[in-house]
Amino acid sequence: MGGDYAPREIVAGAVAAAPEVHGKILLIGRRDAIEAVHPGAMPQQIEIVEASEVVEMDDEPVSAVRRKKNSSLVMGATLVKNGEADAFISAGNTGAVTAAAHLLWKTIPNIARPAIATVIPSRTGCFVLLDSGATVDAEPHHLYEFAIMGSVYAESVLRIKSPRIGLLNIGEEPTKGNALTKATYKLLQGMPNFVGNVEGKYVFDGGVDVVVCDAFVGNVLLKTAQGLGAFVIEMFRDSAPKHFIARLPLLLLKRGINRMRKRMDYAEYGGAPLLGVDGICFICHGHSNAKAIKNAIILAQRGHDMHLVSKIIEQAARTKTGEQFGA
Amino acid sequence: MGGDYAPREIVAGAVAAAPEVHGKILLIGRRDAIEAVHPGAMPQQIEIVEASEVVEMDDEPVSAVRRKKNSSLVMGATLVKNGEADAFISAGNTGAVTAAAHLLWKTIPNIARPAIATVIPSRTGCFVLLDSGATVDAEPHHLYEFAIMGSVYAESVLRIKSPRIGLLNIGEEPTKGNALTKATYKLLQGMPNFVGNVEGKYVFDGGVDVVVCDAFVGNVLLKTAQGLGAFVIEMFRDSAPKHFIARLPLLLLKRGINRMRKRMDYAEYGGAPLLGVDGICFICHGHSNAKAIKNAIILAQRGHDMHLVSKIIEQAARTKTGEQFGA
Repeated sequence: MGGDYAPREIVAGAVAAAPEVHGKILLIGRRDAIEAVHPGAMPQQIEIVEASEVVEMDDEPVSAVRRKKNSSLVMGATLVKNGEADAFISAGNTGAVTAAAHLLWKTIPNIARPAIATVIPSRTGCFVLLDSGATVDAEPHHLYEFAIMGSVYAESVLRIKSPRIGLLNIGEEPTKGNALTKATYKLLQGMPNFVGNVEGKYVFDGGVDVVVCDAFVGNVLLKTAQGLGAFVIEMFRDSAPKHFIARLPLLLLKRGINRMRKRMDYAEYGGAPLLGVDGICFICHGHSNAKAIKNAIILAQRGHDMHLVSKIIEQAARTKTGEQFGA
Repeated sequence: MGGDYAPREIVAGAVAAAPEVHGKILLIGRRDAIEAVHPGAMPQQIEIVEASEVVEMDDEPVSAVRRKKNSSLVMGATLVKNGEADAFISAGNTGAVTAAAHLLWKTIPNIARPAIATVIPSRTGCFVLLDSGATVDAEPHHLYEFAIMGSVYAESVLRIKSPRIGLLNIGEEPTKGNALTKATYKLLQGMPNFVGNVEGKYVFDGGVDVVVCDAFVGNVLLKTAQGLGAFVIEMFRDSAPKHFIARLPLLLLKRGINRMRKRMDYAEYGGAPLLGVDGICFICHGHSNAKAIKNAIILAQRGHDMHLVSKIIEQAARTKTGEQFGA
């Protein structure tokens, strides 16, 4: 029931994903609303779980989770908690999804705070930015844990071998930055895959696979990139000649422009996992269309198949007990 | 002597600016190096001031300012301190320029920390982002002072009437953000031109004229925008068909692409002022070409003509004594 185009696009995404996943898909929400957007028979892997309440986009996250026990959001997280589901996906209120997973599942051992890991396109493919929305006032050891989690996610789910970790900073030298990044640098130095500080202007170059920062900075980076991407595409269109005949070349380039749009499209990358909690949780953009939901379901399936949570638990324990990271 | 293309582009920029400013331009640096890039006679408004030392890009800022008394950078700041110059412009080591102005000139009354104000293009023109590089671990009252300074700069130098001030944040509601932005919101609420929080994805929409944040976040935003701008333009080029004939339309659009490049080009906006110090200081990008230097000189002249520093002093005093902001 969460997201700007729910339940229509959520249901369509589940239907599209069904043939490509080997598990069952539970659609949690108001049965009548779900059936209204999909009047025919559902694929047999899909089941509807009735949830009478809805967490709204402007609900205060923690109190919504406490009050709305029968919401699709709280019920989804509860199903995972009770072992009745293996992963939870939502395009709803990000704060409430984070709060539900955090409060109901708790964080895993040796991880103090959760982080949202968003995939962003780069010149050579993509990189993972975390935290992009869960922990705003982070401390150095939180960022250290984010580096561990991002690295495991990149390796196991995104299939990036030996992911290179960078610390988002405002200069390359270890002494650059604010109090948080200076202290974090010292902690990260011990990781063999840590490549050092990375500046905003170089994150798109493909030199790092995992970019670590606190949620405030990560969210600013993510949203600025979204805003600027749209602005540049628009400026390009507007900067072409105004006359119809002179604009014809633009039509000829349409395939190219669409290819670029597709590459910048968050939906291609599905949802972003909330890492550090004791369960698999994918948070989708509020604007999610069926394609984004489908891709999030496929990623969640892969996270489950690749034992994402236990791999993070193992790696965090190994690193905390002083063993070599990545050993 | 500062910047990647010094002294060639610096000298060329000064020569280009000379007919457009009514003051004198002092070129501070090694006379032989300056004369080597401009063998003919200098325009009569230009004077060379011999400075034997150079602050390098990788010098540690504060110690460089203390040690290299005969550097072009320290001598430039000293000339302003002694009343022998009205403004100081440098494309050198940003940290060292900031340190020189801060240590030699001090901050003005009621302003605790300086801020660098960078102009960024938007859908409707431009906006001022501050702080984009001076004060990384800022407190709420620093951001409050940045709002005052950015507003005065936008109004007096950039000629934006009643500039609207936004607080860079990760959500629109007053309760959103980290500890810093939540506390800053409360302070800014009293300003009549404060329009509330603004998210990264909306800064390019033209809804705000002054965007306030700490230097870490501002620098990440600025550099991400630079990096992504270059990436998107490149992706567009690459996404066009590969075949020569099919690429012809791209040639036809060249003028449009160049117009867009120009609009994204920092050089159009000249340098960024270091606000809050007791003097006019413009910091130029290390890559500055002659055009950027010329535009910075024109802006510095305007800052002087419009009494930028005393206007900030007045406004800061008015606001601190509890008078209505902007009254």
